[in-house]
Amino acid sequence: MNPIHAYVETNKERFLGELKAFLRQPSVSAQNLGIRETSAWVRTRLERLGAKVQMLEVDAGGPPVVYGEIGEGPRTLLSYNHYDVQPPDPLDLWQTPPFEPTLRDGKLYARGVADDKGDLMARIHAVEAYLAVHGRLPLKIKFFVEGEEEIGSPHLDQFAQRYRDILLSDGCLWEAGGKDEADRPTLHLGLKGIQYVELRARGAKSDMHSSLAAIVPNPAWRLVWALNTFKTPDDRITVDGMMDYVRKPSQAELDLLAAIPFEEEKMRANWGIPAFVRGLKGLDALVKLYYEPTCTICGFRSGYIGEGTKTVLPAEAMVKVDFRLVPNLTPELMVRLLREHLDRRGFTDIETIPQSAEHPASTPVDAPLVHACAAAAEAVYGSRPVIYPLMAGSGPMYPLCQQLGMAGVCGVGVTYPGINIHAPNENIRLADYWQGIEFIGALIAEFPRRVVGMR
Amino acid sequence: MNPIHAYVETNKERFLGELKAFLRQPSVSAQNLGIRETSAWVRTRLERLGAKVQMLEVDAGGPPVVYGEIGEGPRTLLSYNHYDVQPPDPLDLWQTPPFEPTLRDGKLYARGVADDKGDLMARIHAVEAYLAVHGRLPLKIKFFVEGEEEIGSPHLDQFAQRYRDILLSDGCLWEAGGKDEADRPTLHLGLKGIQYVELRARGAKSDMHSSLAAIVPNPAWRLVWALNTFKTPDDRITVDGMMDYVRKPSQAELDLLAAIPFEEEKMRANWGIPAFVRGLKGLDALVKLYYEPTCTICGFRSGYIGEGTKTVLPAEAMVKVDFRLVPNLTPELMVRLLREHLDRRGFTDIETIPQSAEHPASTPVDAPLVHACAAAAEAVYGSRPVIYPLMAGSGPMYPLCQQLGMAGVCGVGVTYPGINIHAPNENIRLADYWQGIEFIGALIAEFPRRVVGMR
Repeated sequence: MNPIHAYVETNKERFLGELKAFLRQPSVSAQNLGIRETSAWVRTRLERLGAKVQMLEVDAGGPPVVYGEIGEGPRTLLSYNHYDVQPPDPLDLWQTPPFEPTLRDGKLYARGVADDKGDLMARIHAVEAYLAVHGRLPLKIKFFVEGEEEIGSPHLDQFAQRYRDILLSDGCLWEAGGKDEADRPTLHLGLKGIQYVELRARGAKSDMHSSLAAIVPNPAWRLVWALNTFKTPDDRITVDGMMDYVRKPSQAELDLLAAIPFEEEKMRANWGIPAFVRGLKGLDALVKLYYEPTCTICGFRSGYIGEGTKTVLPAEAMVKVDFRLVPNLTPELMVRLLREHLDRRGFTDIETIPQSAEHPASTPVDAPLVHACAAAAEAVYGSRPVIYPLMAGSGPMYPLCQQLGMAGVCGVGVTYPGINIHAPNENIRLADYWQGIEFIGALIAEFPRRVVGMR
Repeated sequence: MNPIHAYVETNKERFLGELKAFLRQPSVSAQNLGIRETSAWVRTRLERLGAKVQMLEVDAGGPPVVYGEIGEGPRTLLSYNHYDVQPPDPLDLWQTPPFEPTLRDGKLYARGVADDKGDLMARIHAVEAYLAVHGRLPLKIKFFVEGEEEIGSPHLDQFAQRYRDILLSDGCLWEAGGKDEADRPTLHLGLKGIQYVELRARGAKSDMHSSLAAIVPNPAWRLVWALNTFKTPDDRITVDGMMDYVRKPSQAELDLLAAIPFEEEKMRANWGIPAFVRGLKGLDALVKLYYEPTCTICGFRSGYIGEGTKTVLPAEAMVKVDFRLVPNLTPELMVRLLREHLDRRGFTDIETIPQSAEHPASTPVDAPLVHACAAAAEAVYGSRPVIYPLMAGSGPMYPLCQQLGMAGVCGVGVTYPGINIHAPNENIRLADYWQGIEFIGALIAEFPRRVVGMR
């Protein structure tokens, strides 16, 4: 029996207790809730692991990055995670409270269990197990755990620039990743970028009786009319110039996509939808998911939204839109295209407030970290991972990895397609958690061997 | 000195105290808050006035109508008012709490003071004053005070049918009405109708990570695309067939509109808007306000609407739309046209939930009640009232008045254009309140003389 597997078996109860304690600690960066307390919790746990820990700060402020080094040797692996989580609302749709981790049918439910506290704890437990079994690590692991990922990592670029010399490694294992619909381990070679924008319109100086809407402008209508020019009902983006920056995948890239096992019927059933947008299927849906940008209404608020009726003409309207960006579409460019698009159509009254932003990021398929992950996955899961060109989601990989000249890979974590990420009833399967620990254990052994000759 | 004026002068402090006590009693029908308590309060006050009071009920339920008769004689005047108010939110925009009536600069601030508690109390105070001065009333006054006006009077039709024999009178003085921008008293010969509709769309079975919006349908977008087909950015309604029912005003009607003093610049300044919709001015704006229907977004909610960012693909979206109806456009017709319009464009997934509804109503300009109101206004205000064809707002006049064959008039109440109706900081000017009492006193004397020969 694999000795790391045996160690995990012996320590399951304590490991689960520790993960639950971490999940019980709220850490909602969007609401600045519990952030400092949680950073202290992570520091303490890394110190107990034996890591040398510092709290990294930058002049611009923001919560600290918990940075811990453990192990020795010429090879180094950076591990990126975050200790903050998404807001838990709508609360009434949770079967059990978001910050009371609950085990049901082999699944652990809590806000942040899949994104990203489970992932971080599995890595800590893996290092503990490796040390217990082998006495020492064959490389240096650098834990970099930030507290602002869910609000777009506004200071990560400054952390990366200021601490470049201590952070630079032979590769960076990003957060997230896990199994696909058919329980195959997956690897993602990058992430889409994002530009989140709030749009605001104003009408009269206060809410008015709706009868006056015959002659008084309505800010909710202004947003509806503006939004309608962003995307057609068959989900084609029409923001001026935006699609000019989008390249079509090459034949080689289409071949990679075609090799992805895409359990689309199972996905639609899981999500409770009769069809994908535009009725897309198979490769066409994958191309849209991985090679096209998005324009998504994440929230819309105007006027009276309670029970019953209120005949009111709203004074204000607000919509939150996120644009997921493929390579070539940078956040700065997106903000400019959007503003010009609105102005050109007379929507000069609509205010655009850029919020969180991330550059798109991608890593070559032949990087040593990719080979090491593939070998470790094969050893633990019995099959090589499915390789995706990038994640449909976004994360701050670019400033920490590609910008510093480092490969970054998301992959083979503790998640599965039913995790309800960013939604009520977020969960992981506990069996995936135990396997995730073993995967990191195997990667610790594989990675130093693959990077020989590099650097 | 007019003896009623003198009586009011002597009793101002007590009258104001009573009005404040009424306003302190919350009565939000949309939230079923304080409705029974307030009906009991009105009953007690009418009994103290000397009226014979019954609580009218209908089988279908709903709060009682407080019905009080006072006075004798062959001539009868029905007084329609309501004791419920609009929800007070957004609370943070009130300078003083909505249910703590506060006097500032000669204005009394409270939810419901303008719509419609001030109006009702002024009529009660007027009857008290008339009785104190003259000993007896020259006609029978029937107070009809309902508790569901702000949610569309869902049972008024049943009340009217069931109590037709006791309600039928020589005319009905409706709620509301007051002075215009230039402080001239006004009369309105009817009301627009209304159909309030909630539209709902659903996407996946729960909120999802917004990255998946590349392929998963978004209910907020569905509503945006559907709404966009209802009205163009220059505010022309495009719901199929709807404008076919709208007749243009005749030359005689245009002449009436042209005689309305329309202080449009003052209105725009009061409301804080640079221009009316479509840049309309003068008679064109009046025609749109009084002779055209509306299609108004009163509320829109989807996804994350709190502070900061949340990258979520919403599972649900909801919009509240009100349609103000001119004669020929009934609520039933409106619901049918809307549903057909949506279905014809493939929006079969969007649910339409009809909520409150009112028929449009109008009364001929030569009705005795119109003449009596004009004469009473001239006596109290020193000028004949400005006559409007109908109110841009809606109310349940039709089932109680025109349906029973009774004239109904809104007019010469306690309001002015700055009342912030249905909005934060609702208020009336106290001076208007005292004059409003005198107007009702004069009308009590005028009305029986004008209806001689009728009936």
